[in-house]
Amino acid sequence: MFRIKSMEGVLMKNALLKLYNSLKKQVNRNLISTTLSDIISDIYFDNRKFLNGMEKIPLKSNVAEKKYFSFGKEKKLSRPINLNIYLEDEKTIVDFINAVKTNDYSKINAENITKACYTIAIGFCSVIDLLKTGDQKTPGTFFEYFIGHLFARKLNISPKKKLEVLNLGMRATLPTDFVFDPGSDKTKIHLPVKTSTRERVIQVWAHQRVLDGVYGVGRFRGILVGLSETKLDSKRHIVTEICLPDQWRLYQMFIAQLSRVYYLDPPKTYSQLNNAFPKITVLPFGNFFFEIEDLLD
Amino acid sequence: MFRIKSMEGVLMKNALLKLYNSLKKQVNRNLISTTLSDIISDIYFDNRKFLNGMEKIPLKSNVAEKKYFSFGKEKKLSRPINLNIYLEDEKTIVDFINAVKTNDYSKINAENITKACYTIAIGFCSVIDLLKTGDQKTPGTFFEYFIGHLFARKLNISPKKKLEVLNLGMRATLPTDFVFDPGSDKTKIHLPVKTSTRERVIQVWAHQRVLDGVYGVGRFRGILVGLSETKLDSKRHIVTEICLPDQWRLYQMFIAQLSRVYYLDPPKTYSQLNNAFPKITVLPFGNFFFEIEDLLD
Repeated sequence: MFRIKSMEGVLMKNALLKLYNSLKKQVNRNLISTTLSDIISDIYFDNRKFLNGMEKIPLKSNVAEKKYFSFGKEKKLSRPINLNIYLEDEKTIVDFINAVKTNDYSKINAENITKACYTIAIGFCSVIDLLKTGDQKTPGTFFEYFIGHLFARKLNISPKKKLEVLNLGMRATLPTDFVFDPGSDKTKIHLPVKTSTRERVIQVWAHQRVLDGVYGVGRFRGILVGLSETKLDSKRHIVTEICLPDQWRLYQMFIAQLSRVYYLDPPKTYSQLNNAFPKITVLPFGNFFFEIEDLLD
Repeated sequence: MFRIKSMEGVLMKNALLKLYNSLKKQVNRNLISTTLSDIISDIYFDNRKFLNGMEKIPLKSNVAEKKYFSFGKEKKLSRPINLNIYLEDEKTIVDFINAVKTNDYSKINAENITKACYTIAIGFCSVIDLLKTGDQKTPGTFFEYFIGHLFARKLNISPKKKLEVLNLGMRATLPTDFVFDPGSDKTKIHLPVKTSTRERVIQVWAHQRVLDGVYGVGRFRGILVGLSETKLDSKRHIVTEICLPDQWRLYQMFIAQLSRVYYLDPPKTYSQLNNAFPKITVLPFGNFFFEIEDLLD
């Protein structure tokens, strides 16, 4: 039974908040450590237990070739979940967490990595959707930490969130998304992470432009990681995708150039930008683990 | 007495909503017409009546040389209002509205224009703060229409909110803030309007960059109009200003160049950018009416 105000719901919420707080503490301490992988795994299993007690409500999908459902009951619904990439089975998740902890991705393929990450991320977001009202910050922060941790483990680098700018007598600090610096003379990574982008995405290109200006074009590779671009009409139970491909093309032509955009649930409209001018390479997130070395050459 | 749920409060809210709806209708019809000036004047007088029934609660100001208060009662407070530029007296407002309607600003000076505009804008925002909870959209929309109307009257041009982009086989529409086009071979204006900016301000420079890229550098003058940058700690009744001058300098150096930033309540930190490199010209809004012809030469 789904009742947030039941004793079970309260206990669940407290347990999740406790885990979420230990996640935040660990992130501040060390974004690379396997302790963080374990906390993420614990959060997944807690969420899974909670979501297994919910109803799965089918949604009408206006997105070609994708089916969506929500967890919830009656009027309270989680965000839409892509049926084809949400894993019911925990085995792939366990394999993935092991790969993260050992930094060995040879026994799991890109497709299953994308599914495992999607399941962990959308699961957390859905639990927050159901336990709280209008909270976009917690899902966004979790997603940022989660992706940041995966990059940190894979690259074996602790990211920074600000950079020093020294410019003819001006000394300022530029707050950034995650930046990963493998050392001088090596390509660095600028990693914005967003659960969804909409109009705000122009910020990503603008930050890349500032980095290009301050440190020189090509010094930082811009990599955007997104969760999905779905929008739910919660009264009529209809899912759509909100995409602005023409604007992305203008940003890529006139503001700066992003090297990659990875999605956990890639919108087809954006994947088609792989074949347009200006080319924007949009790929499922799992691909990152198998091409990042080449990108940093 | 301040009681939102009193009959008087409900009538007030209904009257304001009715006026606000007629404002929106008129904006869609014609942003230039004096009908809109009259509606704005009506809204001001309605707001004034409502706010005169409120308490004026002094705030502790952490902003040098500025004193602030809020309208409200007990825990419900309006946003902070700058005591030195908020007009108690309606005469200057009436003079200003007349100047707008006749497009003759010879009998009012820049300082009084800034005060009149501040009083109208912050008054509307404060009424919404008191009548609703967490509504940032309505104040933002009103402020955008208000400033858009003043530019449209002054320039005698109806602005657009999107531009056609034609680029080697690509045909896209670029949604923009207001753009004013005085005709071919004349400088055009790109006018973003924000009640406050914070981190989101990078969007303004990024949009300017796209316009520079698509239409050529110098084709559009970017003019940002802001209301204020105050932040209220509503528990402790403390006002601060949130400014990010170093980031503005990086944006002005590395993304695009804004021609002017006008504020109704100019933060000193930003006014100081007039004397720094890169120079960003930050002025009280009233100055616009006396220098715009020169800017468009």
